[in-house]
Amino acid sequence: MTREKITLFDTTLRDGQQTPGIDFSVEDKIAIASLLDDFGIDYVEGGYPGANPTDTTFFAEKRTQKARFTAFGMTKRAGVSISNDPGVSQLIGSNSDAICFVAKSWDYHVKVALGCTNEENLASIRESVAATVAAGKEALVDCEHFFDGYKANPDYALACAKTAYDAGARWVVLCDTNGGTQPPEIREIVAAVIAAGVPGAALGIHAHNDTGQAVANSLAAVEAGVRQIQGTLNGIGERCGNANLITLIPTLLLKPAYADRFELSVDRDKLVELTRLSHAFDELLNRSPDHQAPYVGASAFATKAGIHASALLKDPKTYEHVEPDSVGNFRKVMVSDQGGKANFINELKRRGIEVDKQSPRLDTLISIVKEREAQGYAYEGADASFELLARRTLGSVPDFFGIEGFRVMVERRFDANGELRTVSEAVVKINVDGASIMSVAEGDGPVNALDLALRKDLGKYQHEIDDLELVDFKVRILNGGTEAITRVLIESADGSGARWWTVGVSENIIDASFQALMDSIVYKLMKNRSMAGKIAAE
Amino acid sequence: MTREKITLFDTTLRDGQQTPGIDFSVEDKIAIASLLDDFGIDYVEGGYPGANPTDTTFFAEKRTQKARFTAFGMTKRAGVSISNDPGVSQLIGSNSDAICFVAKSWDYHVKVALGCTNEENLASIRESVAATVAAGKEALVDCEHFFDGYKANPDYALACAKTAYDAGARWVVLCDTNGGTQPPEIREIVAAVIAAGVPGAALGIHAHNDTGQAVANSLAAVEAGVRQIQGTLNGIGERCGNANLITLIPTLLLKPAYADRFELSVDRDKLVELTRLSHAFDELLNRSPDHQAPYVGASAFATKAGIHASALLKDPKTYEHVEPDSVGNFRKVMVSDQGGKANFINELKRRGIEVDKQSPRLDTLISIVKEREAQGYAYEGADASFELLARRTLGSVPDFFGIEGFRVMVERRFDANGELRTVSEAVVKINVDGASIMSVAEGDGPVNALDLALRKDLGKYQHEIDDLELVDFKVRILNGGTEAITRVLIESADGSGARWWTVGVSENIIDASFQALMDSIVYKLMKNRSMAGKIAAE
Repeated sequence: MTREKITLFDTTLRDGQQTPGIDFSVEDKIAIASLLDDFGIDYVEGGYPGANPTDTTFFAEKRTQKARFTAFGMTKRAGVSISNDPGVSQLIGSNSDAICFVAKSWDYHVKVALGCTNEENLASIRESVAATVAAGKEALVDCEHFFDGYKANPDYALACAKTAYDAGARWVVLCDTNGGTQPPEIREIVAAVIAAGVPGAALGIHAHNDTGQAVANSLAAVEAGVRQIQGTLNGIGERCGNANLITLIPTLLLKPAYADRFELSVDRDKLVELTRLSHAFDELLNRSPDHQAPYVGASAFATKAGIHASALLKDPKTYEHVEPDSVGNFRKVMVSDQGGKANFINELKRRGIEVDKQSPRLDTLISIVKEREAQGYAYEGADASFELLARRTLGSVPDFFGIEGFRVMVERRFDANGELRTVSEAVVKINVDGASIMSVAEGDGPVNALDLALRKDLGKYQHEIDDLELVDFKVRILNGGTEAITRVLIESADGSGARWWTVGVSENIIDASFQALMDSIVYKLMKNRSMAGKIAAE
Repeated sequence: MTREKITLFDTTLRDGQQTPGIDFSVEDKIAIASLLDDFGIDYVEGGYPGANPTDTTFFAEKRTQKARFTAFGMTKRAGVSISNDPGVSQLIGSNSDAICFVAKSWDYHVKVALGCTNEENLASIRESVAATVAAGKEALVDCEHFFDGYKANPDYALACAKTAYDAGARWVVLCDTNGGTQPPEIREIVAAVIAAGVPGAALGIHAHNDTGQAVANSLAAVEAGVRQIQGTLNGIGERCGNANLITLIPTLLLKPAYADRFELSVDRDKLVELTRLSHAFDELLNRSPDHQAPYVGASAFATKAGIHASALLKDPKTYEHVEPDSVGNFRKVMVSDQGGKANFINELKRRGIEVDKQSPRLDTLISIVKEREAQGYAYEGADASFELLARRTLGSVPDFFGIEGFRVMVERRFDANGELRTVSEAVVKINVDGASIMSVAEGDGPVNALDLALRKDLGKYQHEIDDLELVDFKVRILNGGTEAITRVLIESADGSGARWWTVGVSENIIDASFQALMDSIVYKLMKNRSMAGKIAAE
């Protein structure tokens, strides 16, 4: 069966840059362009050369190998000739393979934003496309506000699209700039564009997520005949974001409704890198991946105990819409107070711990976990603490060192200059091979001071924790009032790139933090001895 | 024009509870049910009475005023009579108005998960619905795996739906349990169900977000004739979540494609509370709201400097798909604080503070608030701290008392019986009218000890704070590592029933807590003097 090609156009570096809080450096842009190029995206839109120094520098060289490297900018201004428009000259002069022009297609905006006539705007589109093609580059035209423009003045919106196509644009892209268009409207308006003479094979869709339907709108456009989709990595973009390519790509490749009819430059072999691509991009943005993200989230294939978990274990396929492996993700059946014995055995197996179903120690472990979860421990989010507890209950974990006590003091007092200052100090007393070791440290707060003191001198083990790093710290109050129960979750990492989570619970936040810090250190020592199971890197 | 009603069914407390990391207490459930009820949701599904102690306790009383309070559970087991099925008895015996039964509708799962015959499963549906109706309650049937089941065996899936309807179920809900169904398939299969004899007015849709299309699938089902939508607050739920009611409600009310044809129990006047509802729910989950969430996100109506910002200032409506006010959100143009100033004046007015637009003190207040919010203060969640800051900056707040210092100590040591114990002690030194007062207290943790010491002796003000009570305490870590910035929010109440929130931010959790405790006490003293504005009870 021959399949039609759906072309993927990434605008992470251009529209994605409009996301509040996101600003790419040239180095960021080079790194992201290379991720996209390697993954098999057809077009990488890099920014707006001439509009700012970052983008101008970025376009000084071609930054992709396979993907068409695309510059973005406005069509020629009205009232000047194409050769006298410095914006268009910079676009044509940049080291790009293609230029994506943004053109007004709502007559209201032609008047208010451009201040020219409708015919002048059509001439700008026509001449900008023609000049691009004449310069040996490919031209694309983003018809801004196309759907709202069509509702206000269908003839003029269609004239803009038709003008771009007739002038030689390879792609005419219909943009839902304000993001409010609904899927049935997308289908209807795309059909009208095709009926007006721009073939689907030359049409693209650029959707925004203002009603949570950027993905659905993109697919509705494909259903109606469009063959290019514009989107971004993890759906970043202005306001609520753009269409999420990380969601669209697996849907197009794995869902028969599309996979039977279409093909992409990204193939199913490459798709197994999807989760890694999504997380690498978040890493670059220095933010935590969304656990509930379709396909790639840590929870996307997670089942909490309950009516589904035991059936899932019998036959995972009938409870999963696609195989987690296909997108490089993992199945996760979580330990929780509702979990049955089968869940536990499975979870332990994944960590390399074999236990007999009849073992009384397994029953002990299950009852300890249930009791502790009732107290507020959350083992589903703390793999390493769960593994430590299991190994302690089922087998043995060495007593690397003992704790004789600790003391944390926070004092707010006037310093020598008469300024109020808050000082945090911690003293920790541990015991290694019968000898006491006391350490003291000041920190930015009581938990930081405790962490620094605890890791300051571990005696003969000290060199083993040199690469241990605390990367995240979360506090949750489990009930009301200042005497509430506190749960602390700590994420640790080491030089090997492994990451693990530990948990502590107490009515005392310092105590809870201490438990989680201790678990992290003991887990690390165990891991150094290859006793800890493989922990999947996020 | 008469509009058809779309019924809203919330499953935050049931399917939402399946979200990894989310566990509701009975108190949480009561608070959430009340938010939903007040907002105008038609059905509040509260959980599974009989399955766990939390849900059983929750269903011991009816928890809604207007909304139908709905219990969830399985249909009768095969091989026992309805009166001998303890699960069904508990559902019928619970204080619910309606029961939503989950029923298998994919023949594969009937065999593998239930281990009964197809006919026995139909009988379970029929008898469970009939018993519910006979007991005077409304019956709903969630047809689990309906779409996948239909693809595997359309006749059987239809038979399940038809059996539920014929037995007297008010609603037959088509569930995309695995979340992989695409909108065109939803439209096609819903049409087949209606053709088979279950009218759209008795059909519901239950969509999951595994391909990022839970909202679109819900709307596609409505397009095909379905008249009930099931979803959750902020789209929480198993794996990638359920359909997001916070996105669906404004789309149904504001988009002509739906608003012209349909109406909801939530009206447009109530819709202005949408942003507050969404944020209140996140607050309850102790997590940061998603900035890019449709309609309610802080960035949903934000425009970064660039080609849109100046045009947006000329005429905002043509760059916004709906008006931010309509959903209780704000426009944010990041190149100008013009909008900001008006917002501030408005916020102050609500608190009875009149300030001139030209006042230089207003500019000072705005810049202090911006600077502090950049540090991590969240004044939108801390009314009382905002009001104190505003009154201090604009007018004057008396210096009721001064703080000379405090010291908090947490020590873990062996007690007389050789047991490890953790002790928390706080010393506070205040100054009232030139005289120092020192107080010391032990507490369950350092913050509790500090709170007790601070409120132990306030000199001549002591009698004024006798009815002051701390009712909630929340901690959020604003960035990673144990040296992270910590934000503490404290909710206080007094004998008059008033409630107020205060905030503290510091790299030191004790310091942050102290700031919030102090603000709470000073606010209370101000309030006693009728200087504080009316604070709306949550």
